[in-house]
Amino acid sequence: MRMSDLIEKKKCGLAHTREEIDFLIHGLVREAEPIPDYQISAWLMAVYFRGMTDEEIFYLTDAMARSGDMTDLSALGEMTVDKHSTGGVGDKTTLIVAPIVATLGATVAKMSGRGLGFTGGTVDKLEAIPGFCTVLSRDEFLAQCKTHGIAVVGQSGNLAPADKKLYALRDVTATVDSIPLIASSIMSKKLAAGAKSIVLDVKVGSGAFMKDTASARSLAQKMVAIGKAAERSMAAILTNMDIPLGFAIGNALEVKEAVAVLEGKGPRDLTEVSLTLASEMLSLSLHIQAEEAREKCLSVIADGSAKRKLCEMVRAQGGDASYIEDTEKFPRAETVCKVLSPEDGYLSHMDAEKIGIASSLLGAGREKKEDLLDMTAGIVLCRKTGDYVKKGDILAELHTSTRDTRSAEETFLSALAFSGIQPEPAKLIYEIVR
Amino acid sequence: MRMSDLIEKKKCGLAHTREEIDFLIHGLVREAEPIPDYQISAWLMAVYFRGMTDEEIFYLTDAMARSGDMTDLSALGEMTVDKHSTGGVGDKTTLIVAPIVATLGATVAKMSGRGLGFTGGTVDKLEAIPGFCTVLSRDEFLAQCKTHGIAVVGQSGNLAPADKKLYALRDVTATVDSIPLIASSIMSKKLAAGAKSIVLDVKVGSGAFMKDTASARSLAQKMVAIGKAAERSMAAILTNMDIPLGFAIGNALEVKEAVAVLEGKGPRDLTEVSLTLASEMLSLSLHIQAEEAREKCLSVIADGSAKRKLCEMVRAQGGDASYIEDTEKFPRAETVCKVLSPEDGYLSHMDAEKIGIASSLLGAGREKKEDLLDMTAGIVLCRKTGDYVKKGDILAELHTSTRDTRSAEETFLSALAFSGIQPEPAKLIYEIVR
Repeated sequence: MRMSDLIEKKKCGLAHTREEIDFLIHGLVREAEPIPDYQISAWLMAVYFRGMTDEEIFYLTDAMARSGDMTDLSALGEMTVDKHSTGGVGDKTTLIVAPIVATLGATVAKMSGRGLGFTGGTVDKLEAIPGFCTVLSRDEFLAQCKTHGIAVVGQSGNLAPADKKLYALRDVTATVDSIPLIASSIMSKKLAAGAKSIVLDVKVGSGAFMKDTASARSLAQKMVAIGKAAERSMAAILTNMDIPLGFAIGNALEVKEAVAVLEGKGPRDLTEVSLTLASEMLSLSLHIQAEEAREKCLSVIADGSAKRKLCEMVRAQGGDASYIEDTEKFPRAETVCKVLSPEDGYLSHMDAEKIGIASSLLGAGREKKEDLLDMTAGIVLCRKTGDYVKKGDILAELHTSTRDTRSAEETFLSALAFSGIQPEPAKLIYEIVR
Repeated sequence: MRMSDLIEKKKCGLAHTREEIDFLIHGLVREAEPIPDYQISAWLMAVYFRGMTDEEIFYLTDAMARSGDMTDLSALGEMTVDKHSTGGVGDKTTLIVAPIVATLGATVAKMSGRGLGFTGGTVDKLEAIPGFCTVLSRDEFLAQCKTHGIAVVGQSGNLAPADKKLYALRDVTATVDSIPLIASSIMSKKLAAGAKSIVLDVKVGSGAFMKDTASARSLAQKMVAIGKAAERSMAAILTNMDIPLGFAIGNALEVKEAVAVLEGKGPRDLTEVSLTLASEMLSLSLHIQAEEAREKCLSVIADGSAKRKLCEMVRAQGGDASYIEDTEKFPRAETVCKVLSPEDGYLSHMDAEKIGIASSLLGAGREKKEDLLDMTAGIVLCRKTGDYVKKGDILAELHTSTRDTRSAEETFLSALAFSGIQPEPAKLIYEIVR
């Protein structure tokens, strides 16, 4: 088999066999004489133009998953459940749904990512809790899941290395925005992570990679199909990321808001998206209807057991749970600067991506992998799309301990649009693909 | 400017500016931190799918030409003329047309290539003449052109190095068959070679890269447009390469046949294609009608002066012209094996590419650049498409001094088709693009 023939085949719009995909992925990651990057990138561009069949996408995902360690969660039983978000601004749902479903008997053995660019990462948020350790050995991880039903750690080095290499190439060859490649990239890591049930949160809108519901639906359908082909129970929820989720953006700020949801006093949008995700996760792993699952989720918020489960996880991973019990303990940023409205009118649009960038500029996010985070930094929104504001009203607070706030404030204001007419309320959950 | 943005732009079907093309070609060839191959190859694939405007193709060609030395032929006056063939089997026309037009006052300062794969190269053919030197210094080359009006040498190391790099990448990334890329590749070398007038022989058929007249016409039109944009006089002739040109394939065998044409006793097809090419070359450089040019060409064959010009060039480049004066002096291959017809019938098709491969198998061509040639090797066809043969009739002679003939014979026979019905005679010259 020759790589140039595979490129030619894809260029002509033909489907690869499983053997061809295996050849390609094996050739990508092998140490000795790997397939050169220039051949892989030409193939990626051909995939962008020609697409892939559902079978090809599954072969690709499966081959990428098997390129590294496949996590074996079989010792944890049949109720392991994972959740993945395609990435958004202010998205702290993992901190909420993981303890909820773990309280109700599902097992959350979760590997999460770090933030990059304008989106945050769950691992960074957890590290805002003093002492919290996101690196566990394989045995520690499994033991904690067995005892507590919940563990959230960083991704291990050898999780789907083929995806890592492929993504690095896509990033510099304008081949990121290909639905088969996005679907296989996400799902290769989910399959390798080993959970029986997987719920995907596919974000749609200005703060998401998918800017419209049609492409988000297509991506969701491909990912659900891949998971089912790999014998996983699957659901994907299309949720609104046209404005940030909740009011808080930034690591410690988001932990506080997540805890507020577990205390039954979180923002409406964040609570609703979290309940929908948790209900689907529970529905898949307990084989119950989503409505019944939702009632159960509400009950463990109401009786405080979900919050106690989060404290349990924090303690198990070496963190100081008193910060969860009383989130006022989180240190406040040295500088808190209020952003005032420059005009009267309805807030008609908030560009979530720009707000994410503003938050990064304050020190809450990274441009490059090596950048250090300011755990106190971020943005607390005071008004959101649809609200009426007068000139001089406080729109948001910018928090930072390490940076000048000026460029963040400019970026934040550039994200906003005002109008004399009240905008139509936006949908929060667009649809569920099962 | 970032290469990933240029890839994105081409991927979206937008046209590059001249500055963008210059950035890309400069970045391709610079020593320090060149643009990585994986970005170039993704861009090449995007070009394959999206094409290029005529303006972009000109910018690309011009940038590639200027990436190395631009040959300055201005000291040779206004009548410099070049000729290029897209490559065929049995194509020895340069050996015929160069002396014809030089005899008539045009100046042929020509750089030619070596053969690779199933096609031969003029430089290899000339080296079948004992003593003939295809490497001249720049001054020697110009001096010979001034004195004799003719010189044919190998391509210098620094002729369009960007094309060399780009072609090497295209070859391994399934991006060879893109008309904008083919046109710019050929024309970058022609522009850099410096002649005022350029005649292109665009081969069409089983032994050519272009398998049909529509794509050959499109390629011809693009190349003529590039040349005109660079202020060259241009013509392109679409010629039949569905069967080999003439009867001889292989280096010394082809020199003999070329001389036969100059003696007025060459095969009809080879003579006709050569006259058409030479007439166009003369027409462009002398500003006369093609019909008048053709009469002149016929006259220098008839009076022997074209053959004398070839001898003059051979002597000027150190070759033994007695081999041209009497081509029986060329040594005969040690083994000459006759291929007999396996059946009765009309020869309805000869796959020129397969016949070229058979000739290579005998030692006349190269698979890899490093392969050594057997100058005596090749094939002499005894019958061609349209001829009626009886079982046992001699179809061809296979000549070799270094190889076993068995696999060449099998390949040769697999190139033939027989039929009870006489095939329609094929056109030799399809059209002329001016």
